[in-house]
Parts: sequence; structure tokens; C-alpha cells
Amino acid sequence: MPTQLTAAMGKKITPEMEIVARDEGLAPEDVRRLVEEGAVVIPHNNGRSFRPVGIGKGLRTKTNANLGTSSDELSPENELLKLEAAVEAGADAIMDLSTGGDISAIRRGILKNAPVPVGTVPIYQAACENLALEKRLEDISAEDFFSVIEQHGKEGVDFITVHCGVTREVVKRVENEGRLLDIVSRGGAILSKWMRYSGMENPLYERYDRLLELAREYDMTLSLGDGLRPGCLADATDRGQVQETIVLGELAQRARKAGVQVMIEGPGHMPLDQIEANVTLMKRLTHDTPFYVLGPLVTDIAPGYDHITAAIGGAIAARAGADFLCVVTPAEHLRLPTVADIREGVIAARIAAHAADVCKGVKGAAERDNLMARARKSFDWNLQIKNSIYPPHAAEVRASSKPNDESVCTMCSALCAYKHGSVGEKA
Amino acid sequence: MPTQLTAAMGKKITPEMEIVARDEGLAPEDVRRLVEEGAVVIPHNNGRSFRPVGIGKGLRTKTNANLGTSSDELSPENELLKLEAAVEAGADAIMDLSTGGDISAIRRGILKNAPVPVGTVPIYQAACENLALEKRLEDISAEDFFSVIEQHGKEGVDFITVHCGVTREVVKRVENEGRLLDIVSRGGAILSKWMRYSGMENPLYERYDRLLELAREYDMTLSLGDGLRPGCLADATDRGQVQETIVLGELAQRARKAGVQVMIEGPGHMPLDQIEANVTLMKRLTHDTPFYVLGPLVTDIAPGYDHITAAIGGAIAARAGADFLCVVTPAEHLRLPTVADIREGVIAARIAAHAADVCKGVKGAAERDNLMARARKSFDWNLQIKNSIYPPHAAEVRASSKPNDESVCTMCSALCAYKHGSVGEKA
Repeated sequence: MPTQLTAAMGKKITPEMEIVARDEGLAPEDVRRLVEEGAVVIPHNNGRSFRPVGIGKGLRTKTNANLGTSSDELSPENELLKLEAAVEAGADAIMDLSTGGDISAIRRGILKNAPVPVGTVPIYQAACENLALEKRLEDISAEDFFSVIEQHGKEGVDFITVHCGVTREVVKRVENEGRLLDIVSRGGAILSKWMRYSGMENPLYERYDRLLELAREYDMTLSLGDGLRPGCLADATDRGQVQETIVLGELAQRARKAGVQVMIEGPGHMPLDQIEANVTLMKRLTHDTPFYVLGPLVTDIAPGYDHITAAIGGAIAARAGADFLCVVTPAEHLRLPTVADIREGVIAARIAAHAADVCKGVKGAAERDNLMARARKSFDWNLQIKNSIYPPHAAEVRASSKPNDESVCTMCSALCAYKHGSVGEKA
Repeated sequence: MPTQLTAAMGKKITPEMEIVARDEGLAPEDVRRLVEEGAVVIPHNNGRSFRPVGIGKGLRTKTNANLGTSSDELSPENELLKLEAAVEAGADAIMDLSTGGDISAIRRGILKNAPVPVGTVPIYQAACENLALEKRLEDISAEDFFSVIEQHGKEGVDFITVHCGVTREVVKRVENEGRLLDIVSRGGAILSKWMRYSGMENPLYERYDRLLELAREYDMTLSLGDGLRPGCLADATDRGQVQETIVLGELAQRARKAGVQVMIEGPGHMPLDQIEANVTLMKRLTHDTPFYVLGPLVTDIAPGYDHITAAIGGAIAARAGADFLCVVTPAEHLRLPTVADIREGVIAARIAAHAADVCKGVKGAAERDNLMARARKSFDWNLQIKNSIYPPHAAEVRASSKPNDESVCTMCSALCAYKHGSVGEKA
């Protein structure tokens, strides 16, 4: 069966490309060409049915919300509520990162209900099943990694994070330089521990061709994970991180040659003045592979507010060329997110994405801001609320404080500048 | 009586400069020199007593929270609660922007209770008193502007926003170019309307020397308002805005010559790729005058979340050189902020300021992030919470979801990367 990429290489426009083109206001042939170049991916397992979404160059910046249980919070019902909240708040994709309870059943529930692309991190399941058997993480067999990946592909997962760039060489570079917070990606931590104990190379790297075969069979998009992403500002843009990017660039090229769609994941925690350089470097080293960032969080000191630290970093990253923002919720570093946390996180990420899209010249982005400016000028509150990033909340705040003159709000009341500031008004 | 600036010009180090130097980890002589150059201000009315704060080049980026009633929401008690919340959340200064109820009494209450610098916008009071007499805004006499300013100086106000740059020439430039949302600064709107009806020049510009005399008498710092700041992305960096900056640069120079401390206010709503250019331009045209920004808000479409749009813009602006961030609350564009809104707004602005301070090399900034990284690595939750931007909230979120193993959190539980990701660990 062809993948989106092999179809594009064969000059064929798929139904998914047509939908993406329509949503983005582009010509179908432009989308096909971008998919062929590898600058756009359309994560869409060939065994699952839902409205496709394109991610990459020239398209609207997309957002992904991470859901999933942990061994401390493992209600499957709650995860379905989070899925619903994420989609209602406007997430373009979701990832199920469950690590507690019946992981396979939870994933199947999410795959059945999600109207958007679904991603997973198969290594979590391999690790959890190992821990459940009271074995050590390092006792996972290389075969376990692949059998879980195959299972996810069969069930309909649209994209998977695989930490193929966490090689012995890359980890050695991190060790040589030293880090304040070591490895903070769970996948990266598991694999580096596994390599240290086994003395062997990362199987996802060493047997990458096998991974490509599996991905191609189901048209699962690979999201090459940044296992060495910095977990604090001090570790950002170090030699290990950049080394991993070089390796990921090579792997992305091999994926495309094999007809497999591929994205690359990026940091992490990062001072805001390093973000643009990181995106530029990533895009160059990976030949414009769609770039999926987690944050970056521009400070380490704001637990409880990391949706804001991530919105700052995400806006800067997206403007510099990042294509896909992973939602960071206010719960990050403190607890598994609640339904409300997911909602707040999605909205903050969408704000960052939209602010960047205005600068990227994405079709319709600036027009939406201009529509809001006109609605303000004409005191059209219905339009202001309808056109806001999350109408239910704007409506609620507005309704909580009633002005005497309904055309204004209680902030300025009679002194509303829109009432007095018209420059066209004549005496 | 000398002002901070005239003292600095006379090579004298004031007690206020000594405190600022201690707080910032600088030598008192360095602070004196920065004040003399006009690159730092210490807003501190000579008739009021409180711990001084420095604002400007080389110092920690400061935040200001706007409080104050409107004609729809006019409880004086509530404003004192907002003051308390703003200070508790870490605001470095507050402004009382009351436009409802007994404005003078509210201001006096705030001045009495505020342990931080207090600013006002005297023209609001002039306008409100006029409206209360059922007169038109444009019937304010030029004398009214100055008598209100004198009253604020006498009562102890530390800094005042004065829209001296809203001249006939500047407004003409806005009219020539045209705008989507006209003038959105209340002071700018009032003055432009006043000039249009009276046919006269802005008295705060025409009689600027009189304003300087009043400011000098009380050592009130002038905050030259950006009356033409853009109110939507489409109006950003237009000719009117830049023209006003040129005029404000001239006025700042005249203020310093007269021994009056001066800051300059900036936008506003602005696409994020214009922010750095704006800060660079402002700093150059005004010879490094401390720059006080409202936002900038990087999109118009997020009412209910404008603390986030402002945090994105504020972080970028502060990194580019802005010195003082005005808090924007989640209530902006929808209602007068509540106590909770003020708290959320202050925290978001402080995150933006701190993220920039790490990049600016402000003393102690990066060290605080590193301390957090170490606390995470050592699973020291008390330190993580104590060192967070707003400890009560971090503590509450953490306590709401109890992990089985207390050293981790319920996000990753047994799969915590800090547990598995040590690169130093040996087999």
C-alpha cells in the first residue's frame, strides 16, 4: 500500500492531500510537492479513518496535546474526557502517553474516539510491561521494542515518537561535557540506561531499516524523538543535543528515501535567546523536516505556570520555523494534568501558534486579528467573543462583570478609548 | 530639594541609590552614574517613604500592576485588596488608574498602604471630574491638567503618565496614514479629542516646562505616555507611533536637563516580529531612557488570555532591552480585573521578565534556574516549591495529586526520567 510520501513521489495527489490543501488554502499540487520534499507530513495510519491534518512548511502551525495515565493516576474514563477537552479547545493532534493501567485498552479507546491524528511513544509500553513483570528496565529485549511498535501500527496509531538518535556516541558526548540535569526525556533515559547495562547500541538506531519497514507498512509517521533534549536552561544547546540533531538529520533522510513520513522533535528547556538559532540549525541539518517542539520553556522556575513559559518559547520557535507545538500544561513538573489543565495548555499553545502564524504569513491569520480590531471598533461583542481563541471563556469573563453601558466593558466604562479615540471624528 | 537625578549630576550617592545598588548587586557609584546618564530611574516622591526600586539598564526587569476603579466597579476596599495581591505576587510597582468613585480618596488610601512606587495618570482624574460635572471631555481647561498633576505630586505620587507626545503634528500623521483601531490609549484619546475641539496644541507639550517644574518639586518621575500606541496588530509601528517616539525622545532629553527623572512608555499590540525593532528604535531615539512597555500583545484574538499574549511579547521586549513590564491581566478587553486577575497577571509578567533577565545577564537570574535544576535532580520538593515563581500555587498543585513514591510526581510516576536518566550512573 502506498504511503502519503510514496504517493507524492509518484506524483499522485491523495484524498488526504486534497483535504489538507482545502484547509490551508493551498493548491493540492503544492501540498503534494511539499509532502514529496518531506517538508510537510500528513500523519494518517492507513488503517484509521479521520479528517487528516498537515504539518510543516507553509501550513498553519499545529498543536498537539499529550494525554495518558500514569501509575498514580490511571482512570481510562478521565483520559477520554481529556481527549474531548483537548479537541474542543482546538488541539490539532493528540498523543496517548499512558504509562498506567491497561495501556493497550486505553490506547484503543482513544484511537476509536479521536477525530484527530493520534501519536504514541511505544517504548513507554515496553518499559511498563517490563516493570510490571518486576524486571529491570534494562532487561527489555530489543525485540520488545519492535513488537510494541508493530502492535501500535496495527491498531491504527498515526505517528510514533522513536528515540533513534540516542546512540552510544551521542550519550558519550553528553557524558564528556557534563550536564546539570542529565537526560530528562523518558525515552532517552530508558534507552541510555539500557545501552549502559547491555553494552549494546540503541536497537532503534542499529535496526532502523526494520523500523522503517514497520512504519511504511501502516504509513505511521515517525517522530524522531529528542532523547537528549535539555531539561534545564543550563543544559540547552550543548554538544550532546546538537550531536543528536545531526544523527536525526541523517535518519530523516533515510526515512524519506524509504517512503516513510518523518518529523523531528525538539527541546525542551532553553533561554529565549537560543531558540531561533536552534530552529535554524535543526531545519538546516534535517533539510526542512517538519519540526515538533515541546516548549521550549524559557525558564525553569515556573512550575504551575509552564503553559506560559512554553507559550513564550513556542511563539518564538514557531515564528523561527517550528511547525508543530506540543502542549505544555500548567501541571508540568507537578502532577499528571487534569482535564482543566489540558484545556488551558491547548489554548496557550494555540495562542503561541497563532501569534507566529501572523508573522509567517499563514493564510487567514492576520485577517483574524483584523476582524477582532474591527469588532472592537464597532462595539460588536458577539463577534469579539465568537472570534476569540476560546469563546466560552471570553463569554464567561465578559458576563461576570456587567457594564452600565452595554457597548463598553467595565475596565474603562465611560472613559472607553474606542469611544473617544476616533481620529476621523470631526467637530 | 534635589531630585535623584540632580543629586546624581552633583556626584552625590543618595540613600535610595544605595538601596538599589544593594538589591541589584551593583556598586552604588554605578547606580549613581546610570541615574546621571538617565539610563536608570528611581521613582520616589520626596514626600513619601517606602523601599525604593530602580528601573533601567543593567537592572532586573521590573513589573508594574495597574489597579483602580471604573465607573462600573468602584469599591475602594477592593482596590486595597488588589494592591495587597499585586505586592504579594511580586509586583515591583503599582499604578492607581481609578476612574470611578472618590478618586482622590482611593489614591490616598493606596499611597498610604503601598510598600512600592505608586504611579497615576492624572489626566484620568481631570476627565472624570469633568464628566461628573456633565461637561464634555473637551471642556477640560488646560489649567485643570496642571492642577491635578500638582495635587498628585503633593500627595506623594512617585511617577505619572503624561501623554506629552500627543501633539497636533503626531495626530495628523495618524490621520494621514489611517488606522484600523484609531487611538486606544485613554490619555491619547482624551487629548486628541481636546485638541480637535479646541483647535489648540496639547498643553502638556506646549507648557512642558511648567510640567517639569512640578515634577522636579516632588521628584515625580515622568512616564511619557505613548498616546498613539497601536491597539491592534495592523496599526503597529505606523508613522504616527514612530513620530510620537521621536517627540518623546526630545522631551526626555529636556526632562533630564531640568533634573527630572523620565521613562518612556511603549506599545501595545504588535506582531512578534516587530518587537525587537521597536525596542531598538525606542532606545536609540530616546538615548537609553528606561522603557516601560504594556505588553506588547502579540495577537488581538485572545481576550480572556491576554496575560499570555502579553507574556510572550513582554519576554521578547525585555530581552531586547525593555526595562519595565506593565502587567496585563486575563481580564483585559473584557472587564475590570478582579483580585485573582491581578495575581495571575503579575505572575505572568514576572515570568516574562525573568526569562529575559536570564538572557540579559542580570545578576542572580540564571543562578535561580540552576538552583531549580539541582532541586529537581535531588528530588528536593521543598526547594522546588520555595524557589518557584509563586510558591503557594506550586504547592497547591503538587498537593492536589499525591504520588505513591513521594520523591516523584504523578506525571511520570515510576517512569520519572530523573530516576533513570543519570548519565553518570555506572553499571
